[in-house]
Amino acid sequence: MNLPVSLERLINLFGKFPGVGEKTARRMVFFILAQDREWAKSIARNIVEVTEHVTSCNQCGAITTEDICRICSDPARDRRRICVVETQEDCVAMEQSGIYNGLYHVLGGKCSPLDDQEIPKAGMDLLRKRIFELNAGEVILALDPRIEGDLTAFAIQEALMDTGAKISRLAYGLPVGGSIGYADRATLHVALEARREMKAEED
Amino acid sequence: MNLPVSLERLINLFGKFPGVGEKTARRMVFFILAQDREWAKSIARNIVEVTEHVTSCNQCGAITTEDICRICSDPARDRRRICVVETQEDCVAMEQSGIYNGLYHVLGGKCSPLDDQEIPKAGMDLLRKRIFELNAGEVILALDPRIEGDLTAFAIQEALMDTGAKISRLAYGLPVGGSIGYADRATLHVALEARREMKAEED
Repeated sequence: MNLPVSLERLINLFGKFPGVGEKTARRMVFFILAQDREWAKSIARNIVEVTEHVTSCNQCGAITTEDICRICSDPARDRRRICVVETQEDCVAMEQSGIYNGLYHVLGGKCSPLDDQEIPKAGMDLLRKRIFELNAGEVILALDPRIEGDLTAFAIQEALMDTGAKISRLAYGLPVGGSIGYADRATLHVALEARREMKAEED
Repeated sequence: MNLPVSLERLINLFGKFPGVGEKTARRMVFFILAQDREWAKSIARNIVEVTEHVTSCNQCGAITTEDICRICSDPARDRRRICVVETQEDCVAMEQSGIYNGLYHVLGGKCSPLDDQEIPKAGMDLLRKRIFELNAGEVILALDPRIEGDLTAFAIQEALMDTGAKISRLAYGLPVGGSIGYADRATLHVALEARREMKAEED
């Protein structure tokens, strides 16, 4: 190939992102070239900034630039609810959805016997400590809707039995906007099992 | 939202890329965070480098870091063939496929009456000049297989009539690896029109 070396190198670097193949990487690099230089500089500066300043919250493990994250230190959040997620990314997903007003706890791992993974003990110990400290009334498990998520949920349930906190888990069911025709068998099964009675509207 | 500002800003910047939505942008940013810092620094450095050093070849308009691109200055390329593409990106696509050994000419635009676009006159003049200079025998049009590409091809054909160069265009037909069942009507039609006789193999 006879491309400028710097261009080829940047296409290769973009090709490393998950789900980005060679063609998408090329499109992205040409998109950068089509913007003004300030845009390119600002994305470059931000990449370095994020990797240099971002760390984990001492209390919940969520992503932050300080010792304690903005969620943990926000007095407006409901401090009697803790939402348990596997990764920092899952925490951001929940947070960006804007549907939850409690605190978080990032486990940092899951129970996956096939990959020989256990829930990190440090993460579980911190969670127990936090529940007692906050006198939390509910622990909401926001774990992936698959086997590893189920196993992780059961393991957490067992480990927290003595805390007295109510433990709940996000519901399984049909995704909003999906279609019955494309739903897989397992999803249809859980959606059927968890069906809800429709009450007549009161006038 | 209670994300670190720098994180949110970087997610927003990544979300500007074509075909990248909020979720993909988030995944990409978390991917960066999961790499070591050197990786992040190197992608940042490369973004700046590319936008600062990359320019257009004086002769063919392709992407380059020098006055004349590596393709135009390569003595091993077939200098009697010119492949006409609409954009620098298309040129890279052809070049990365590794199937072509001639020179290029980047038009920098197309004929699109609906968008009130014409082929840039400067690009056409340069192409004519180049054909005479190189005494090119063939001009291969590698234009998008759609209406604008057709119109652009006809306009170029007319403009180059007096040069004596043979003008050809990439074939329409079924994409390799596709399936008849999913092919659209127009593609099936051109593929049928352009069908090729299968000759019995000679022993």
